[in-house]
Amino acid sequence: MPIIECVPNISEGRRAEVVNGIVDVVQRVPGARVLDYSSDSSHNRSVITLAGEAGPLKAAVVALFERAIAAIDLRTHTGEHPRLGAVDVVPFVPIEGVTMDDCVALAKDTARTVAERFKVPVYLYEEASSNPLRKNLEDIRRGEFEGLAAKMAADGWAPDFGPSTPHVTAGASVIGARMPLIAYNINLNTNRLDVAKKIAATVRFSSGGFRFVKAMGVTLADRGIVQVSMNLTNYEKTPILRVFEAVKREAERYGVNVLESEIVGLVPAAALIAAAESALQLTAFRREQVLETRLREGGGDGEVEKWKSGKVEK
Amino acid sequence: MPIIECVPNISEGRRAEVVNGIVDVVQRVPGARVLDYSSDSSHNRSVITLAGEAGPLKAAVVALFERAIAAIDLRTHTGEHPRLGAVDVVPFVPIEGVTMDDCVALAKDTARTVAERFKVPVYLYEEASSNPLRKNLEDIRRGEFEGLAAKMAADGWAPDFGPSTPHVTAGASVIGARMPLIAYNINLNTNRLDVAKKIAATVRFSSGGFRFVKAMGVTLADRGIVQVSMNLTNYEKTPILRVFEAVKREAERYGVNVLESEIVGLVPAAALIAAAESALQLTAFRREQVLETRLREGGGDGEVEKWKSGKVEK
Repeated sequence: MPIIECVPNISEGRRAEVVNGIVDVVQRVPGARVLDYSSDSSHNRSVITLAGEAGPLKAAVVALFERAIAAIDLRTHTGEHPRLGAVDVVPFVPIEGVTMDDCVALAKDTARTVAERFKVPVYLYEEASSNPLRKNLEDIRRGEFEGLAAKMAADGWAPDFGPSTPHVTAGASVIGARMPLIAYNINLNTNRLDVAKKIAATVRFSSGGFRFVKAMGVTLADRGIVQVSMNLTNYEKTPILRVFEAVKREAERYGVNVLESEIVGLVPAAALIAAAESALQLTAFRREQVLETRLREGGGDGEVEKWKSGKVEK
Repeated sequence: MPIIECVPNISEGRRAEVVNGIVDVVQRVPGARVLDYSSDSSHNRSVITLAGEAGPLKAAVVALFERAIAAIDLRTHTGEHPRLGAVDVVPFVPIEGVTMDDCVALAKDTARTVAERFKVPVYLYEEASSNPLRKNLEDIRRGEFEGLAAKMAADGWAPDFGPSTPHVTAGASVIGARMPLIAYNINLNTNRLDVAKKIAATVRFSSGGFRFVKAMGVTLADRGIVQVSMNLTNYEKTPILRVFEAVKREAERYGVNVLESEIVGLVPAAALIAAAESALQLTAFRREQVLETRLREGGGDGEVEKWKSGKVEK
């Protein structure tokens, strides 16, 4: 059974009854599973994590749009986090048994439907984008809701789907496909923020580091230590262990050790298994060797595999 | 849904129609999944890997006994591998959502049933054993089928269940519970067998190494290299990465490098995730953070988890 993840970000993080109402509507779509949701009141924003197959996820996103547009008015919305619309961003993420192309197709199909049904302009982003100038979310969202009418009137900013002017209360939405994002932090046994910031600068893409790393140095005041706080945006091309080892080596330059690392929220098993493969020098490992994968895939097809005698009870 | 693995070893590895017939009968038990099976003709032995919940697995093992006892006559059985019975060994292995105690209870329950129904003496082993002298399979099997009648008559060798003399054609069986066994090999970039043997001796329990490692040095003649070939019998207490690092360090003593390592057959995801946790210094990681685990466990319970803003689309 293919698994796609979908992580709608909505511009409401203060009114619990609104967020719960939206989650509730989504949860009732058969085949769409709500794995997590959480709200940030200073951002005035909520993140909902869904999983399922393409059909149920599309239905869930349509239901989410309907409810969110009815409940959220961006004309009175304030919050720290930049936003363009009531339903601000909807990424589809390939997890298992599904390709990026499948997710791109799902993003476009969903974008077309919500744009038509709710009269909301939609921009496609990341892997679903067909225009390099409109690939990054930051570029699409620049100017935010308040600047949206002017932006949409400018050259090159007609939306991919829907009307050419903002929805009065719901603005515009950004829908697309991307790899799973892993929130990964490494804590250092020092209180020197400059060290964390220098290390962050060496590993992040924007200042010459790894292609799929965003990073910043922050202080964990309650513990008296600093942290290299990262988003890994493609763990296949920039693996977690490689980033960890680069941070560790860089820290040594300053006489600093890695205290520990942490993954915030969910992580695909494949990202951790890749780290194990690398640490163990497992060069020919196949995912079908993971017992749980074999169990999910069925088995019972009677295929004979030659076991080495090591597996015979001795 | 709890998952138990069960790995019956039967004393037939030459007559494909007999093995296929047994696998076929087991496959037809609802809820019991055949993940793999394979035969070794020089050992004249087959290994079947099943998975499921306790009830279906017990039913599958009973069906396997019935068929195997009808088809296998140990009086005419020859092969390199030591054996005591037609159904030689049946370990139950906790994989997910199930404790070792559950597997011990299942082993005893299954042992009692097959002993009564088929009049076969059964010895309990490993975690299911109640007698330290009868914990190791090697000790129970010593003397093999040919010496069984004499052994059973000796002091301390009355079986745990069933008659006090061997079954005429099926001998006796050994049933128990143990941790998953991982067949793990590390290849060295040398052809010096003495190095592989010395390293094997340092890491294996029997000569002073890790508690849950069996190891030997072997030559891979076709590649002109040597291998430290191991069985890891408890990856929780003796983790894969710790064994790998010990072998790697020991190899350096002889100026030898690790070329690669390999896992033969299936491995529980937890064993690899533990290696990733260790390599990445993930000190507070929870298994529920693995996306696939969350998916299997259901989700959709509406519990709100506080996400760090790192997971908000930036």
